[in-house]
Amino acid sequence: MFNNILIIGCGLIGSSILRASLSKKLARKIYIFEKSKKYISTIKKINKKLIFIKNLDRNISKMDLVILSTPMSSYEKIIPHLNKFLNSKTVITDIGSTRENIFSLKEKKLKKSLTWILSHPISGSEVSGPKHGKKNLFEKKWCIIVKDKNKHKLNKVIKFWKKLGSYVILMSPKEHDKIFAITSHLPHLIAYNLIKTAQDFQKKNKKNLIKFSAGGLRDFSRIAASNEIMWRDIFFNNKKNMISAINLFLKNLNSFKKNIQNLEDKSLRKKLINSKKVRKQIVQSKQDIAKPDFGRD
Amino acid sequence: MFNNILIIGCGLIGSSILRASLSKKLARKIYIFEKSKKYISTIKKINKKLIFIKNLDRNISKMDLVILSTPMSSYEKIIPHLNKFLNSKTVITDIGSTRENIFSLKEKKLKKSLTWILSHPISGSEVSGPKHGKKNLFEKKWCIIVKDKNKHKLNKVIKFWKKLGSYVILMSPKEHDKIFAITSHLPHLIAYNLIKTAQDFQKKNKKNLIKFSAGGLRDFSRIAASNEIMWRDIFFNNKKNMISAINLFLKNLNSFKKNIQNLEDKSLRKKLINSKKVRKQIVQSKQDIAKPDFGRD
Repeated sequence: MFNNILIIGCGLIGSSILRASLSKKLARKIYIFEKSKKYISTIKKINKKLIFIKNLDRNISKMDLVILSTPMSSYEKIIPHLNKFLNSKTVITDIGSTRENIFSLKEKKLKKSLTWILSHPISGSEVSGPKHGKKNLFEKKWCIIVKDKNKHKLNKVIKFWKKLGSYVILMSPKEHDKIFAITSHLPHLIAYNLIKTAQDFQKKNKKNLIKFSAGGLRDFSRIAASNEIMWRDIFFNNKKNMISAINLFLKNLNSFKKNIQNLEDKSLRKKLINSKKVRKQIVQSKQDIAKPDFGRD
Repeated sequence: MFNNILIIGCGLIGSSILRASLSKKLARKIYIFEKSKKYISTIKKINKKLIFIKNLDRNISKMDLVILSTPMSSYEKIIPHLNKFLNSKTVITDIGSTRENIFSLKEKKLKKSLTWILSHPISGSEVSGPKHGKKNLFEKKWCIIVKDKNKHKLNKVIKFWKKLGSYVILMSPKEHDKIFAITSHLPHLIAYNLIKTAQDFQKKNKKNLIKFSAGGLRDFSRIAASNEIMWRDIFFNNKKNMISAINLFLKNLNSFKKNIQNLEDKSLRKKLINSKKVRKQIVQSKQDIAKPDFGRD
């Protein structure tokens, strides 16, 4: 599909793109730019033919597809190299979790002759690094791609993600950031906040809570173990939507608190019953399986 | 171990106790008191020798062990029957998730000659009903038992749960309710609140969020699909601890909000990194496995 692909940053997502691209034979040659020596030694074991480049210099000019899969906070340092050494035949894409800020960064900093199609695969885990990458990470998962006027290059990127097994959907950066503030960014912040609250309680009361965490806390702790650089970037980049999501959450939590304080049976039960509808919709839309979860042994 | 066991209320937990008791041969005869016809027809398929009783009357006087596994809000209606028909040789226990209120209910309403040892197995799921019960539901799970001065009967109940495979630990009702407010009750309320927030957002913005829920929302939806009667009872019964847990959570969330609002990098990242410690402790104490979770297919 491509002659030369360059993956910049080869952690969980980058190495999964690498593995999937190898498995589906999507490129003649795959180039890797990765700073961590530990990561490089893991990646070398995946395939012997990979080409590691030490600098983003003139040897990147031959790339057909460049994928940024570093934390979003590194994009700004990478762009000048793309501007200097790439030409209009290359398609650039990335995998970042917020889109308005990256779209505006691209508009401001990327040379006009270059094309960057923004993409965001909805997949990942609480673990980081190439040793956890999987070739089927994107299979049957959504990949959000930002609309672009360069239809030819847009289609190339769409086709690429489809080959990796993703369901592709087009969105504006604004729509994307609004939706994912609720379905992903707020849930992560809430998980972090719950764990922080448990830690504070533990410190204050000098009690070991952890061994009794199977009642619910356990499941949040997994989400709250996600990579801190990635999530700092997301929370800051999607600040406006995060603040409104937090405000809506606070309003609802204060209402729950009032229900409990005043033993308001009817109003509380209505909320608890309504939640089941969402669960049903999630299972129906194949975002999770119906099989009950009793914890993982 | 016992001649006659009576299980009052045979849903997820009751039917799991039933299954485990049959499998470990803990009773000569097992009696079931269950009001739902649908549940009864499911339970009948488990074993042919079960004895179904229609009323809590004189035929319960021969029981050696009586287990209340109805929602806690039904206990008050059951106690007069226990007072009228049981005698001092019987041990009573239950499986409720809050202990201070039930301990005080027992002190106030249960006849002094009877002994009720409170127990709380830390196991369950988002599903309800006997069809989801499992004989190994309690294996390698904690069961909290409330201290009691009747050592003989306390030991009988401890032995029973150990036979079901549980790790037993003794606590005061107060200690129990404080700990589980944080490890179980608050996480459930927060999951319900997050789903409510997503629903509100969906209604307001007329967007279908559900199909993009794999980014985190999905995992909370499972917990928020738990039984509403059980959780209403828990939230109301543990009101005092719930309110302080909610207040601590609100304080922390407001601090996270401030970090995001003012892009306070250092303070935010410190919190995000600290959460990983809890995850490590949870895995070390075997409350979850270390294997990363990429979603269930």
